[in-house]
Amino acid sequence: MPSRRDSLRALAGLLALPAAGWAAPPAPATRRSGHLIAVGGAEDRERDRLILRRFVELSGGPRARLLVLTAASADPEGSWAGYQRVFAELGAQHVEPIDFRSADEAHDPAAVERLLAADGIYISGGDQRRLMAALWETPAARALHRAFHLRGACIGGTSAGAAALSRQMLAIGEPALRPYRDAVSLDIGLGLLAYAIIDQHFNERHRLGRLLSAVALRPDLLGVGIDEDTALVIERGRAIEVLGNGAVTLLDGRQMRSNVRDTDPEDPLQLLDVRLHLLPAGSRFELTDTDTDTPQPPPALRRTLELLVRPGPIRG
Amino acid sequence: MPSRRDSLRALAGLLALPAAGWAAPPAPATRRSGHLIAVGGAEDRERDRLILRRFVELSGGPRARLLVLTAASADPEGSWAGYQRVFAELGAQHVEPIDFRSADEAHDPAAVERLLAADGIYISGGDQRRLMAALWETPAARALHRAFHLRGACIGGTSAGAAALSRQMLAIGEPALRPYRDAVSLDIGLGLLAYAIIDQHFNERHRLGRLLSAVALRPDLLGVGIDEDTALVIERGRAIEVLGNGAVTLLDGRQMRSNVRDTDPEDPLQLLDVRLHLLPAGSRFELTDTDTDTPQPPPALRRTLELLVRPGPIRG
Repeated sequence: MPSRRDSLRALAGLLALPAAGWAAPPAPATRRSGHLIAVGGAEDRERDRLILRRFVELSGGPRARLLVLTAASADPEGSWAGYQRVFAELGAQHVEPIDFRSADEAHDPAAVERLLAADGIYISGGDQRRLMAALWETPAARALHRAFHLRGACIGGTSAGAAALSRQMLAIGEPALRPYRDAVSLDIGLGLLAYAIIDQHFNERHRLGRLLSAVALRPDLLGVGIDEDTALVIERGRAIEVLGNGAVTLLDGRQMRSNVRDTDPEDPLQLLDVRLHLLPAGSRFELTDTDTDTPQPPPALRRTLELLVRPGPIRG
Repeated sequence: MPSRRDSLRALAGLLALPAAGWAAPPAPATRRSGHLIAVGGAEDRERDRLILRRFVELSGGPRARLLVLTAASADPEGSWAGYQRVFAELGAQHVEPIDFRSADEAHDPAAVERLLAADGIYISGGDQRRLMAALWETPAARALHRAFHLRGACIGGTSAGAAALSRQMLAIGEPALRPYRDAVSLDIGLGLLAYAIIDQHFNERHRLGRLLSAVALRPDLLGVGIDEDTALVIERGRAIEVLGNGAVTLLDGRQMRSNVRDTDPEDPLQLLDVRLHLLPAGSRFELTDTDTDTPQPPPALRRTLELLVRPGPIRG
């Protein structure tokens, strides 16, 4: 693994020179602050396309350099073809696919440079385990971190791509009616979202039970359930917004008392004092005092959101 | 409506004399403290029959005078036949059906006396609106109150019978993916449970959205979601216990901030800081200090349970 100093030196070089292989458009004018867009799957691609439109906007607009990362998909060409069409319709001028089938491919310097130079990277759905099998501890994964943390790129992910944004990733989950310890299996994700566990297709697939199971295992992390065609937009360290047609359910178990350590793996769990926040599309909260037009969250929600927007360590 | 003094005088007479029409077994030896058993529907009648067994026990045992109240059912004879068999198998010696098709029937003094003399009354499933259409503001409904409050009878209810135990009753509810104001319609129930709204078949029918809708409308009341083959047993003013195969979900919205007054009736609701407690079967909490073997609830749950076990006003 390169040292942090090596990484920063390499990065400095990359920032100074356009990455090879790009049409090298001028960088967007505004300094981006780094956004994550976690999408619950099945985002609208035909009508308003509100979520994908916001991804283009937060990446810097029509001239932003966008990548569609299809490594989670079993059919990367098909996945790319769908996004190619819709991003073109939305006016994005520089959109390319990027794919990794193996860790070998995720060591390819040319691919890494493309990630480092991107203004926005959209991670398709599929299987989060396939994605992480290719990217885990690779230069490509580190490039995603540097793009987000150092260049303020916008990283979006839908369905499996959303699940993989977090550090502790919900890898497998049973459709649990009620939470139990073995309802979920956690694995390591990309770690761009450090203090949350994301579940997608949340209300549509009735996943409260499995997300509560995850929160029982890791009460230090927020459970984040995102409905289909719904996005949680996180502005690093500052604000959150919910877009689309559903809601985001936040489960804060930091005050919780549970019996997760005392029960058998398939026994139903007792969970006392979970704080639940339901944020439908249109919800927006700032955690800074600069924008007085945006509602300040009430105290319990503020504590939850402070954890949600907190950037994790850069893994570069 | 009779005055409270009249009611008490009538009651004193009933306590002194066996009610007409009964086989007049001796009253159970132990002074009962008054239990409610709210069952989420589909309680086991073939295997352990844990819930129905507990109903018999809390009513006073095999010699208790039990009634099966079938007024919620579209098929009262069929409903009674099922319970007649299972209660006989459980050794209950004095079980009779009681039914009300109309408010007229619920004014029948003989029926009222049977309710007043019962040690346990089990309210069948069906439709809680049918039940209340027959019982609302009738002597029979008041007799249920007196049996519970003054004689410490055990009142059980399953499915519609559970929903009707509360004062604010979930009369109609959409299978809402996400809460919205018009997802539920509240009506007046029996009022034996004064500070809660019960929903049944809770996890099986994915009713979190509709129960949250009810809590949004009435944040002063606890949302109580009861799974199938699961019972919430409430010992008046003292303790709660969960029996059966599922869990009870408690939603305490008293700290909640919501936009329920500012949205259109079908808009998704924003609900901030709902306290959720998930109590699987086997959970038991005492609110008094007398029994040191039973776990004391943590503070947030204690506040929730204090509301749940609080007896409402007697409506007699």
